[in-house]
Amino acid sequence: MAEAEAPNRSPEIRKDRIHNRWVLFSPARSRRPSDFKAKSNPQPNNKTECPFCAGHEHECAPEIFRVPANSTADWKIRVIQNLFPAVSRELDFQNPVSALGDVAVSGFGFHDVVIESPVHSVNMSDLSPSQVGEVMLAFKKRVEQLQNYDNVKYVQVFKNHGASAGASMSHSHSQMIALPIVPPTVSARLDSMREYYKQTGKCSLCDIQPNELLIDQSAHFISLVPFAATFAFEIWIIPRDHSSHFHELDNEKANDLGGLLKLMLLKMSLQLNNPPFNLLIHTSPFQVDPSYAPSTHWFLQIAPHLSGVGGFEIATGCHINPVFPEDAAKILRDVRIL
Amino acid sequence: MAEAEAPNRSPEIRKDRIHNRWVLFSPARSRRPSDFKAKSNPQPNNKTECPFCAGHEHECAPEIFRVPANSTADWKIRVIQNLFPAVSRELDFQNPVSALGDVAVSGFGFHDVVIESPVHSVNMSDLSPSQVGEVMLAFKKRVEQLQNYDNVKYVQVFKNHGASAGASMSHSHSQMIALPIVPPTVSARLDSMREYYKQTGKCSLCDIQPNELLIDQSAHFISLVPFAATFAFEIWIIPRDHSSHFHELDNEKANDLGGLLKLMLLKMSLQLNNPPFNLLIHTSPFQVDPSYAPSTHWFLQIAPHLSGVGGFEIATGCHINPVFPEDAAKILRDVRIL
Ligand SMILES: Nc1ncnc2c1ncn2[C@@H]1O[C@H](COP(=O)(O)OP(=O)(O)O[C@H]2O[C@H](CO)[C@@H](O)[C@H](O)[C@H]2O)[C@@H](O)[C@H]1O
Ligand SMILES: Nc1ncnc2c1ncn2[C@@H]1O[C@H](COP(=O)(O)OP(=O)(O)O[C@H]2O[C@H](CO)[C@@H](O)[C@H](O)[C@H]2O)[C@@H](O)[C@H]1O
Repeated sequence: MAEAEAPNRSPEIRKDRIHNRWVLFSPARSRRPSDFKAKSNPQPNNKTECPFCAGHEHECAPEIFRVPANSTADWKIRVIQNLFPAVSRELDFQNPVSALGDVAVSGFGFHDVVIESPVHSVNMSDLSPSQVGEVMLAFKKRVEQLQNYDNVKYVQVFKNHGASAGASMSHSHSQMIALPIVPPTVSARLDSMREYYKQTGKCSLCDIQPNELLIDQSAHFISLVPFAATFAFEIWIIPRDHSSHFHELDNEKANDLGGLLKLMLLKMSLQLNNPPFNLLIHTSPFQVDPSYAPSTHWFLQIAPHLSGVGGFEIATGCHINPVFPEDAAKILRDVRIL
Repeated sequence: MAEAEAPNRSPEIRKDRIHNRWVLFSPARSRRPSDFKAKSNPQPNNKTECPFCAGHEHECAPEIFRVPANSTADWKIRVIQNLFPAVSRELDFQNPVSALGDVAVSGFGFHDVVIESPVHSVNMSDLSPSQVGEVMLAFKKRVEQLQNYDNVKYVQVFKNHGASAGASMSHSHSQMIALPIVPPTVSARLDSMREYYKQTGKCSLCDIQPNELLIDQSAHFISLVPFAATFAFEIWIIPRDHSSHFHELDNEKANDLGGLLKLMLLKMSLQLNNPPFNLLIHTSPFQVDPSYAPSTHWFLQIAPHLSGVGGFEIATGCHINPVFPEDAAKILRDVRIL
């Protein structure tokens, strides 16, 4: 009879105070067997025919802007419409219509793609710190444009890298979806952060004492593994100064962020062998009730996907993480970038 | 220049009133290309060495009970401890301890596995209606046992089928995790359903008018595609009579549920070519404030995984579903089972 081996460390349940949700930590889980053949990490086809590559601009949906602004063949970044959008800029915004108690609105919104390099094989972590900073500034510029639409309530900037993190295109890119609603996870985050503020008089991110969770820091940002990380080796990059909106980022800070973000991506990639990951910018809705201002603080999340999720996570919203954040932070701190 | 083709139907944003979250519907999304090699659906190894098979009971963590109770080699269902548990029955329950504003509790809880057949190749949909009913009754029996532990607040029953739905073992099984906390998605569901009750005086599930969303029905249950389905071809099975807890299920209803559940699994499997899926039982916490009783109503969710999720869903909690529920319901209604 196979006895459960004594796990090196007892499981623990931690509360993510930013999102007000629980995460289960259990190192024993990482030792479970799988009788499925190893999931081969799908590799990109070596397409000569990628629409995001320089020279293929005509295969893409319309361009919104490029960086540098007046460049021709030598562009560095292009912000374009998504050809298969989840929401449509051509629909009118409607107020919720209600039928039999069910609520639906037209799928008005903007769904854009940010192509981060003209070269197919260049990853975000291959860019220079200032080039990563320029990508951040391209995000910022597009968010500021979207702010001009009255009915856009929230913009989600996200990056899918690798097929298991959802990517369908391998050429380095991010996406932005501008929504006419405030998404549930965003509302929950705002409420949870305001609750912390009410109790302590402090912003929950300004008040973080990273200690053993710290990975690194720069002039304007710190990077750490959050206390109740949802994913193994998850990383947050948090601006030191209190700021509710990502698009408050200025040029100097963008450049500084570029350096720290590049370093975190390199460390993750080296330690975890170029894992699939998502990069998420958690910001505030455009019009946020003034009572939220002192407690909302934007940050950036890097979520590697070392294992999939299952029914438990879908049903409960609780994730199971086999790696304690202190251990992940130590490992990431110790990765040497040459 | 590739123009975005006019999608057959405009995107729409719908509110799931049970969970109080938004879902984006966009048929155009289903036409986007992928430059990753097709994700080969990992196939199970044809192991002769599966610990869940009859004859290998000694390779498993301890048994809790079997069905029939006094069977020896001829058992039909076994409920056993999970050898690599996410929570531990050996830990003491602690009240939340707080360090630097961070909240953690010991990982006390129960993590069990329900082996649904002694035979490796038998899927849940291969069982007879009454055998599926017996699996439901095994869930119920174990939930009732767990109710005796004061510190267990909620039990999540879930099934992972197929590697992309999280399964690490291919032998048909489900799992149950008993938690010392109420998970966030469960609290949100309870609150949202109570809000509907406050506004209408009715339970949101008793009040459902399935109409074109109906797939089928039995004496005690209806099956439908929910108005704001999170996943393409998602199915809910809802008891007709108001009932807060899954473990109120009696023998007759379990048998009736077995028939409808088997039929839904067969239809899904036939239409979608045996897709990976999760089966989730959404019930209420054991001790639920009496004010929730008239509005909480348990149900069963079948969530096929036809595509993965990406950063947008992780960041916002909004899913993107390329198939309108009315269309999915029509297709599932029309699948003929011989
Ligand atoms: N020629 C062209 N011009 C303009 N745009 C083009 C184009 N060809 C393709 N595109 C768009 O480029 C985008 C590439 O995005 P990603 O690779 O990050 O993932 P995708 O959005 O496909 O889905 C992942 O992310 C979403 C959101 O998280 C999840 O819903 C989904 O399940 C997951 O696979 C696609 O949205 C596609 O529509
Ligand atoms: N000999 C033995 N005796 C007893 N138990 C044994 C055993 N050998 C293996 N087990 C257990 O059997 C279970 C099989 O479960 P599943 O295949 O449904 O998915 P798993 O829990 O691995 O993870 C999926 O589901 C969880 C929860 O949703 C996600 O966290 C995860 O990412 C996803 O892959 C495992 O939990 C394993 O620990």
